[in-house]
Amino acid sequence: MADTKTRILTKTGELFRRNGYVGTGLKQIATEADAPFGSIYHFFPGGKQQLAAEVIRAAGRMYQARVAEVLNQGTDPARAMEVAFAAAAQLLIETDFADACPIATIALEVASTNEPLRQVTADVFTEWIDAGIEWFVHSGYPRPVARELSIAFLNALEGAFVLARALRSTEPLEVAGATMSAAVSAAAPAPGREG
Amino acid sequence: MADTKTRILTKTGELFRRNGYVGTGLKQIATEADAPFGSIYHFFPGGKQQLAAEVIRAAGRMYQARVAEVLNQGTDPARAMEVAFAAAAQLLIETDFADACPIATIALEVASTNEPLRQVTADVFTEWIDAGIEWFVHSGYPRPVARELSIAFLNALEGAFVLARALRSTEPLEVAGATMSAAVSAAAPAPGREG
Repeated sequence: MADTKTRILTKTGELFRRNGYVGTGLKQIATEADAPFGSIYHFFPGGKQQLAAEVIRAAGRMYQARVAEVLNQGTDPARAMEVAFAAAAQLLIETDFADACPIATIALEVASTNEPLRQVTADVFTEWIDAGIEWFVHSGYPRPVARELSIAFLNALEGAFVLARALRSTEPLEVAGATMSAAVSAAAPAPGREG
Repeated sequence: MADTKTRILTKTGELFRRNGYVGTGLKQIATEADAPFGSIYHFFPGGKQQLAAEVIRAAGRMYQARVAEVLNQGTDPARAMEVAFAAAAQLLIETDFADACPIATIALEVASTNEPLRQVTADVFTEWIDAGIEWFVHSGYPRPVARELSIAFLNALEGAFVLARALRSTEPLEVAGATMSAAVSAAAPAPGREG
C-alpha cells in the first residue's frame, strides 16, 4: 500500500474528478484514503486549498505525460490528432464517462471564486499549451502556427470532454479528432522545411 | 421588481454560473433573491434539484437565442464564426471572466454524480447541437457535414471558455474563432447549391 501522503493525494484526485472541489470534504478524503483525519493537516498545513493545489499540479503533470505518450506514438501530426482523441474516447468509455480532463471541473468551479486555485489551474493549462507548442514546432510548424494549433487542440479536447460527459457519447471526441486532424493538415509546413 | 419565482430563477442562475451547483445553497438563493426561504419549496417542491433543472433549461434557451442572434447577423458562415467567438470574448471581458457557458460548470459537476441533472444538461446540449445543424444546413451544408460543424463549434466554444476563464485571457476564444472559420471555409458547399 502506498504511503499515507500518496494515498491522500491519489484519492483526492479521484474525488475531485468525480465530485468536484466544493463537493469533496476532508472527512471523506480521510475515510477513502484510509488515513487519520489529522494526517491531512500534518501533510498539508494549508488544508483543503493546499491539498487541492498539489493535486491539481500532480494531475497536470500526469495528464501531460499521458497525452505526450500518445502524441509521440506516430510521426504524422495529423494522424496523431486522431489517435489522441481516440485514446481519450477509449478512456472515457472504460471509466463510464468519468475520467476526462483531471482539472476542468475544478478550473470552472474556482475561476471566479478562489483566486489562488484559479492561478494553479492557469499554470497547468499554460504548461500544457507550452508543451503542445514544442510538439508542433518539433513537427515542423512555425512557432506562431504551433501556438494556434496547441491552443486549438486544448480547446477541442476540453470542449469535447464537457459534451461527451454530459451526453455520455464519444461523438464529440470523434468530431474533435477529425476537426483537429484537418486543421493540422491544412497548416502543414512546406516539405523539407524541418524535422 | 420581478415576481418572486422569476427572481429566484434569475438569482440561482447567477449563483450557479459563479459558484457552481454544489457551491450554491438554498439559504443563499433566498437571501440574494430577496425571497422568503419557504417560497423556494412553494415554487419548486422538488427543492434544489428541481430548481436546478428549471434554471439549466431556462439558461439553455436564453443562451441558444443569444448565439443564434449573433450567428444570424451576417450571411457568410465562416465570418459568422469569428463574430460569434468575438462576441463571447467581449462578454467575458465585460463580466470579469465570469459569464461564459451558463451550464458547463454544472454539467461537469453532475456528469458522474446526479443522473437526473446530467440528463437535463444533455438535453440542452442536444438542443444546441440540433440548432447548429439547422443553421449550417440553412447555410448550404449537407446535413452530415452540418452535424460535424455544429459539434465542432460547440467543442471549440466550451473548451475555449474553460481555458479563457482559467487563464483570464481571450486568446483561446480568438484561436477558436479562427480555427472554426477555417474549418467552415474548408467544408464550404459548392456555390449555387443552396441558399
